[in-house]
Amino acid sequence: MPDFNATDNAYMARALELAERGCYGAHPNPMVGCVIVRDGDIIGEGWHERAGGPHAEINALAEAGEAARGAAVFVSLEPCAHHGKTPPCADALIDAGISRVIVAMQDPFPAVAGQGIRKLRDAGVEVDCGLLEERAEELNRGYLSRVRRGRPWLTLKIAASLDGCVAMANGESQWITGPEARADVQRYRARSGAVLSGIGTVLADDPSFTVRDESLGDAARQPLRVILDSRLRMPLSASMLDQPGDTLVFCADDANRAPLENTGAKVAVASGADDRVDLLAALEELGRREINAVFAEAGPGIAGSLVERGLVDELVIYQAPHIMGSETAPMFRTPRWTRLADRRELQVLERQVIGDDLRITARLRD
Amino acid sequence: MPDFNATDNAYMARALELAERGCYGAHPNPMVGCVIVRDGDIIGEGWHERAGGPHAEINALAEAGEAARGAAVFVSLEPCAHHGKTPPCADALIDAGISRVIVAMQDPFPAVAGQGIRKLRDAGVEVDCGLLEERAEELNRGYLSRVRRGRPWLTLKIAASLDGCVAMANGESQWITGPEARADVQRYRARSGAVLSGIGTVLADDPSFTVRDESLGDAARQPLRVILDSRLRMPLSASMLDQPGDTLVFCADDANRAPLENTGAKVAVASGADDRVDLLAALEELGRREINAVFAEAGPGIAGSLVERGLVDELVIYQAPHIMGSETAPMFRTPRWTRLADRRELQVLERQVIGDDLRITARLRD
Repeated sequence: MPDFNATDNAYMARALELAERGCYGAHPNPMVGCVIVRDGDIIGEGWHERAGGPHAEINALAEAGEAARGAAVFVSLEPCAHHGKTPPCADALIDAGISRVIVAMQDPFPAVAGQGIRKLRDAGVEVDCGLLEERAEELNRGYLSRVRRGRPWLTLKIAASLDGCVAMANGESQWITGPEARADVQRYRARSGAVLSGIGTVLADDPSFTVRDESLGDAARQPLRVILDSRLRMPLSASMLDQPGDTLVFCADDANRAPLENTGAKVAVASGADDRVDLLAALEELGRREINAVFAEAGPGIAGSLVERGLVDELVIYQAPHIMGSETAPMFRTPRWTRLADRRELQVLERQVIGDDLRITARLRD
Repeated sequence: MPDFNATDNAYMARALELAERGCYGAHPNPMVGCVIVRDGDIIGEGWHERAGGPHAEINALAEAGEAARGAAVFVSLEPCAHHGKTPPCADALIDAGISRVIVAMQDPFPAVAGQGIRKLRDAGVEVDCGLLEERAEELNRGYLSRVRRGRPWLTLKIAASLDGCVAMANGESQWITGPEARADVQRYRARSGAVLSGIGTVLADDPSFTVRDESLGDAARQPLRVILDSRLRMPLSASMLDQPGDTLVFCADDANRAPLENTGAKVAVASGADDRVDLLAALEELGRREINAVFAEAGPGIAGSLVERGLVDELVIYQAPHIMGSETAPMFRTPRWTRLADRRELQVLERQVIGDDLRITARLRD
């Protein structure tokens, strides 16, 4: 890896910061930020705000104008080399006379995958790659998951009491956490291409799964609502079917799909064992539909199955300062874990107080 | 309340800090610290190290010597006025020529209860009371609970996974938390007059409940081991019966007490409804036996009953970064809590990372 200095680091950190501004609007594209530097001054900044709109590099070049000639560009992802909805950024950088490009990471998207860097080098631009690569990977873990694994990054959200209960045995669960935690959930939803839940939750709570937080502004779009519903028990009167945005219902048997489709919902088949929806197949279908990030808000059955199948990339647990006792539902239904050795170890990434609740972000250790 | 200034605060804070050094040895006496100040200099410091030994004031006077004449004394609890195992401290302060005494709080112990302050004032000593009173109350919450309520302060300890499980359904629970958390438990035990558990835990794990942490030094004594065992099922071969320190077994029916007493264990009757041990009666008996603080390390049944009966003063929950799933035992067995409205709200006092675990200290809200 080339030698980067502290100043290089700072410029790339700024590019990553700009990139994150696209968290609500860029998907299914990656979030990208770009900083143009000349004689130690930042002369242009840009980020990819919205899919279909201009890329980060183009926005930064527009700000820099003629001063870009001979300048250096820090960009959080390899510039594209292909004509997508916009012309290739590599060409734009070359045309602007940029002399050096520092890239945090290569873009694994097949139409780019090193070709952006090659195009720049072929045109005589000095290119260095790998500055703050880990942070760039982390930022676009959703996009990268879809491109590399063919399925979205899955974040499983759980709202529980301090003693680990997500509902009473009778189904009561509204509300376990406080308003601040629920607002935080809105932001997660808005950053996700899809919200995933099960028919049990629909039948019990009739949730809308929409983004309602006005502070998120225009950039926030409604995530696709994905419901796992093996036998298509989804009521045609379900609230979410009347909401802005789309609903996709995965079933194992679609014999009775027409009435649901008539409401405007989409239906897809992903059948697995025991006439249940196959979770991996459903996630792969979401990958094909260009969903980068799935935010799962499901009950103990789906939560347990997702963990058992190794499909949970991240856990976000909101822990309320209550004890709910024994006549309750657990976070995870795991009938096959019978010995202490069956437990799964977590790597806790962050613990953050949100209102009266504690938000724990964790990943499962291998 | 008199006007105290920042300097007064600092001296009393120091007295409280000294007092806490008695946390392992002072009980059943209160922890007390004392600072003697003359012309802005601390000329003597003392604390009550061990029940039966000299009180804080006497130790501080010994350090100050003749310089104490005309000095001010900051003491975290009202000086005693009675002959206990040692002569009254109020007399000693008067004899030493102390001109002013600042007291954090009155001692509610009937033989003191304002009489120490009165004695000082009668001798012409200026006395002010109430400086950092809340902290002084908090420090001696165990002693104060016993004196005021006739029963010890009860801290309920729970070691659980992040999803709130304390054991597998098959009983496996060793070990859920890491070595640092277990060492922390040792310090809690050492500060407590008694450790309380149930016969279920004894039969499942055969714990010794001893203080084994050598870093605690000589001051640490073995807490009384208290086992709730309605029908005296305690095995005569139980490990704890061979350990240093005493074991007290509460039963509902003591017909078969002789064999257990022959091992050196003590047996007491505290019978309640359904032939079970009455928790409040047992705690009141511990109060009569001069136990200030009980550290409960019990299973879900006792934990649930203690919460339901309003006998838990503080919760200390060690939360391990694991998920254990649904084939497990919950923190609290609460068969009567069937609606969400039955849950109990906690006030979280502290969240502290201990090794890989999180320690949550909380109290139940009314």
